[in-house]
Amino acid sequence: MIVVMKPGASEAELALLVEHIRASGLREHVSRGTERVLVGAIGDERVLDTALIGRLPGVERALRIVKPYRLVSRELVGVNSVVQVGAVPIGGEAWQLIVGPTSVATPGAAEAVAASLAPCGARLMHGGVYGPALFGGPYEAQGAGVAGLEHLLAAARARALPAIAELTDVRLLETFLEYGVDALLIGARNMQNFELLKEVGRVNKPVILKRALAATAAEWLMAAEYVAVGGNHRIVLCERGVRGFDDATPALFDAGAIAWLKCESHLPVIADPGRAVGRADLVAPVALAALAAGADGLMVDVGAEAHALDTASLQQLGAQMRALAPALGRTFA
Amino acid sequence: MIVVMKPGASEAELALLVEHIRASGLREHVSRGTERVLVGAIGDERVLDTALIGRLPGVERALRIVKPYRLVSRELVGVNSVVQVGAVPIGGEAWQLIVGPTSVATPGAAEAVAASLAPCGARLMHGGVYGPALFGGPYEAQGAGVAGLEHLLAAARARALPAIAELTDVRLLETFLEYGVDALLIGARNMQNFELLKEVGRVNKPVILKRALAATAAEWLMAAEYVAVGGNHRIVLCERGVRGFDDATPALFDAGAIAWLKCESHLPVIADPGRAVGRADLVAPVALAALAAGADGLMVDVGAEAHALDTASLQQLGAQMRALAPALGRTFA
Amino acid sequence: MIVVMKPGASEAELALLVEHIRASGLREHVSRGTERVLVGAIGDERVLDTALIGRLPGVERALRIVKPYRLVSRELVGVNSVVQVGAVPIGGEAWQLIVGPTSVATPGAAEAVAASLAPCGARLMHGGVYGPALFGGPYEAQGAGVAGLEHLLAAARARALPAIAELTDVRLLETFLEYGVDALLIGARNMQNFELLKEVGRVNKPVILKRALAATAAEWLMAAEYVAVGGNHRIVLCERGVRGFDDATPALFDAGAIAWLKCESHLPVIADPGRAVGRADLVAPVALAALAAGADGLMVDVGAEAHALDTASLQQLGAQMRALAPALGRTFA
Amino acid sequence: MIVVMKPGASEAELALLVEHIRASGLREHVSRGTERVLVGAIGDERVLDTALIGRLPGVERALRIVKPYRLVSRELVGVNSVVQVGAVPIGGEAWQLIVGPTSVATPGAAEAVAASLAPCGARLMHGGVYGPALFGGPYEAQGAGVAGLEHLLAAARARALPAIAELTDVRLLETFLEYGVDALLIGARNMQNFELLKEVGRVNKPVILKRALAATAAEWLMAAEYVAVGGNHRIVLCERGVRGFDDATPALFDAGAIAWLKCESHLPVIADPGRAVGRADLVAPVALAALAAGADGLMVDVGAEAHALDTASLQQLGAQMRALAPALGRTFA
Repeated sequence: MIVVMKPGASEAELALLVEHIRASGLREHVSRGTERVLVGAIGDERVLDTALIGRLPGVERALRIVKPYRLVSRELVGVNSVVQVGAVPIGGEAWQLIVGPTSVATPGAAEAVAASLAPCGARLMHGGVYGPALFGGPYEAQGAGVAGLEHLLAAARARALPAIAELTDVRLLETFLEYGVDALLIGARNMQNFELLKEVGRVNKPVILKRALAATAAEWLMAAEYVAVGGNHRIVLCERGVRGFDDATPALFDAGAIAWLKCESHLPVIADPGRAVGRADLVAPVALAALAAGADGLMVDVGAEAHALDTASLQQLGAQMRALAPALGRTFA
Repeated sequence: MIVVMKPGASEAELALLVEHIRASGLREHVSRGTERVLVGAIGDERVLDTALIGRLPGVERALRIVKPYRLVSRELVGVNSVVQVGAVPIGGEAWQLIVGPTSVATPGAAEAVAASLAPCGARLMHGGVYGPALFGGPYEAQGAGVAGLEHLLAAARARALPAIAELTDVRLLETFLEYGVDALLIGARNMQNFELLKEVGRVNKPVILKRALAATAAEWLMAAEYVAVGGNHRIVLCERGVRGFDDATPALFDAGAIAWLKCESHLPVIADPGRAVGRADLVAPVALAALAAGADGLMVDVGAEAHALDTASLQQLGAQMRALAPALGRTFA
Repeated sequence: MIVVMKPGASEAELALLVEHIRASGLREHVSRGTERVLVGAIGDERVLDTALIGRLPGVERALRIVKPYRLVSRELVGVNSVVQVGAVPIGGEAWQLIVGPTSVATPGAAEAVAASLAPCGARLMHGGVYGPALFGGPYEAQGAGVAGLEHLLAAARARALPAIAELTDVRLLETFLEYGVDALLIGARNMQNFELLKEVGRVNKPVILKRALAATAAEWLMAAEYVAVGGNHRIVLCERGVRGFDDATPALFDAGAIAWLKCESHLPVIADPGRAVGRADLVAPVALAALAAGADGLMVDVGAEAHALDTASLQQLGAQMRALAPALGRTFA
Repeated sequence: MIVVMKPGASEAELALLVEHIRASGLREHVSRGTERVLVGAIGDERVLDTALIGRLPGVERALRIVKPYRLVSRELVGVNSVVQVGAVPIGGEAWQLIVGPTSVATPGAAEAVAASLAPCGARLMHGGVYGPALFGGPYEAQGAGVAGLEHLLAAARARALPAIAELTDVRLLETFLEYGVDALLIGARNMQNFELLKEVGRVNKPVILKRALAATAAEWLMAAEYVAVGGNHRIVLCERGVRGFDDATPALFDAGAIAWLKCESHLPVIADPGRAVGRADLVAPVALAALAAGADGLMVDVGAEAHALDTASLQQLGAQMRALAPALGRTFA
């Protein structure tokens, strides 16, 4: 059972609820979000009376949730959640386009990418600073580290763009917070690094959670639940393709999962088609497919890599998004 | 090497080319389409001189093709092919919507479905008449057979709709031709039934070739090549999802494959999202995703099955297609 | 419900049972095997009384089967079935080794292979005569056809070896029977070619049914059920690997499926590891793994192809099987 | 290029080599193992002369390696490596059986398991102390933590068994070392947690590296390479099944990968069949299959979980291993 506390419920009211749960032989799980406190009752729920709990002081409502994922399920929140990254909302009517270099190498490179965002309608910047690209080995560049973070943030702030960077190591979380990264990206490799998820669940910072290569959509929601139970409800899911048997493309982009998630969860869903298709000329059609399936935005790389767009293709993608948005009841740029 | 003969090239000119190929130590493969004759030279192509062969009488052009699939490759034909099913073109600017019942049981049922096509913009009718639904066992209904074929054709002809039916048995090909089915559907189960493909390659009838559950896109094109080498170039590919590891949906709809095929082949590509997603409420978003990825049309089931649309949802899908088409440079209904 | 008739039950007794089933509002499915008649009652089984039916004249026993596959399930037959191919039993204590060339090209080639069987302990010969190897395109050799069949049978009969050939086309079944092929092989590509399965279900000839590349073990048993319901209960399953995401090997050999099948079905299970691993040096370890997992025999190719063994490796495999058999409670050669 | 230094080569000799590599415009990667120092030259290797480098003082040999994984490849070390865990060797002629509870809850439970090892021939104990079982959500028990570690180590030491525990968090590495865990287990979820791999690469402690659910065998070797480049060459690979499409078993046990690894790498390979098959009655046949495919040992859970063996089945597995070993040229217990 999940109990939603009223905004402004007191600690005493919360304590009363917890006492009631414990007295019934269950354990409580308190998730303190910035907007509301959610309390899960864990154990044999049948002994609890939903109506009775709903009438306790400070309680807004109590509901039983059948799915193993609770806080992120659409059963709990029946409308689309909107996650603010800086001043930019993800998950509302407006589509968002997140653009950045695969790897931030120099201040000049970061600045050049940053300059390409406004013309195409992008309002959020990302950049790879730690760790190799997916599947990279130990002999490949492992990212520019703190220096890369500084380049990314300098370039983004110069243009008032919120900046997103991938967190690959739990020991770097403090650094990311000190530098003021606007959203934490959890990559496919770390989607089931539960210790990392627990830590980002304890901070008040948006999290973009990519799908692991072989995660079912339900397992992906369970990973999001790890973040949410810590109190951080500002989660955006990002489909990036799953492992398939066909080497025509490096990963199989799962448009059906996007449609499924919009029915099963209230979280915003975005898509990163580049690494799935692995070829710049396939990025735009699959990006548009993701939006048509219900995605709330896109994440694309610009640069010279096989999977990345050049600036001209990026502008064209922005134009296609603008043309497509009204037909799907959305807005863009 | 593939040699494209001029329209109207004589048998003597063809014989001269074949003689040249054989004299070089290779074998020829003559594919006599309704519009043109294509000749493949099989063996060590390096001994052949493309320029020399291009100047033989009756030859339009000769070109080397690197891919194992040749006649269906975009290297051979650099523009989108259009396949006529009755008077309806698949593969041009206009999207097509193919609608039908999963299984044709009675004349009334077929008639009811047929009546639902015009309002939603559909111009082609399909209907299951032989064989169980995919994965069906021997204890399930195996289709209405010839009676079903009669119901389907009667309903379709009453409204001047071309009719499409699935051919599951090579021994039924004559029957399908006698009844005047307008296009042959080859289902996922039979995509690698090469003896069946060879036979449909010998007739002048459009073929809609669904992807096998675990076929790579390249293997799918090789299956199409089996049809094309027989002389039947009127092939439409139909993506219906591939086997994946996630039971959130019965199959994984491969939007990336659609984008890839539009780059690698000249054949029209359509999509049947219903069996992939398995839930009526997910059909429309994934159908629109397929179109955004580049598909030339859709195939949907109407009826009471979990994966099928009801009439109201069908009309809504037609309306969404109409709204979306101009934004993607297409037309619909 | 499945009703097992007594050996020698009369047609009148069968008719009485059928009448009882129909009177209860269900349909019957009569499967006339060479040893026993099995009757399935199809519909809402709850109206039938197992005990009552078990007492009808000519009935040996009646039992409810929960699984969708019935005749092939271990619920129906609680012991390992043994299938005779010629005089050679598959599925008993003795392991069998089936050896042959990937493709029978000449009488000499067939004879050379046939000579290699006895020294390694193999008692059954196979040979590819129709159709390309799996994944072969239309430009590759499509098999030697009837001539190949003649070479195979001549070589096998000269040494009193039962001969097994792959049936790829329903129209060739008569030819196979006339030539006296001792067992029909259904390849991976045709595992869901239900029209072919129905036909081989009607003849009294052992069938070796390979698993389709993306078939679940349950779907594979359902394909076997298609054969069994026709009355042909002489079915051997052959694991040959499934489609996976790792190109280290062409297919992923599913040792767990062998163990699972030995629990879920009474049919014999053999394994063809060569096409799964694609490399001659990996054939023996995976072959032994299959036997350790519970397989009743092996099918291997000899020849020069990448996946085929040379004669020396074949003798070594036979020696390893002899060494391994007692440790696993089996015998070999 | 990989340069193997002589045992006892001096720092000056190493410095000379490094200088030579840098002077050629490449970077060096020095991996200081307990037994030997390995130096990788990274960059365009063609400018280096293998013969020349092989004659530098302190150099044993220099060789070019084609594969992306180098230190773990069989090209570098042509014989099977043996990894000592405490006094127990993994990778030699003797098979090892590693036994433990899925989760260590109490001292009594750990002690009971420890007592079951000697009778079945097991000489290594493992136990889950941190993190949920694979796929477990945040509401499930997350392990007993340090207390569990203490129970595990107390039970193991009382019987002189080396103890193995899973490391799920880089911040716990110091704790594991202080407690004297004898080998670190890296679970499937963390196989691509490269920051964790780098840290365990820096310590002198055996590492058992499980395969990620969707890792190719080559990616798995690259993960091992991350450990090896840090200087820790004591790596054991553990196959535990990969994600497949068939829900007959939770994962698809990849026997072919074991055979492949024994050809491509010198590292020991063991297998954990329990989580792949998910059913206690399938554990033994698949465990024996792994050994027949070439595995050097097994890891099994004992307990009441669906995938775990009870004590009687464990003894039986040990007996089967004893019977099987001589037939495969191995020894056990």
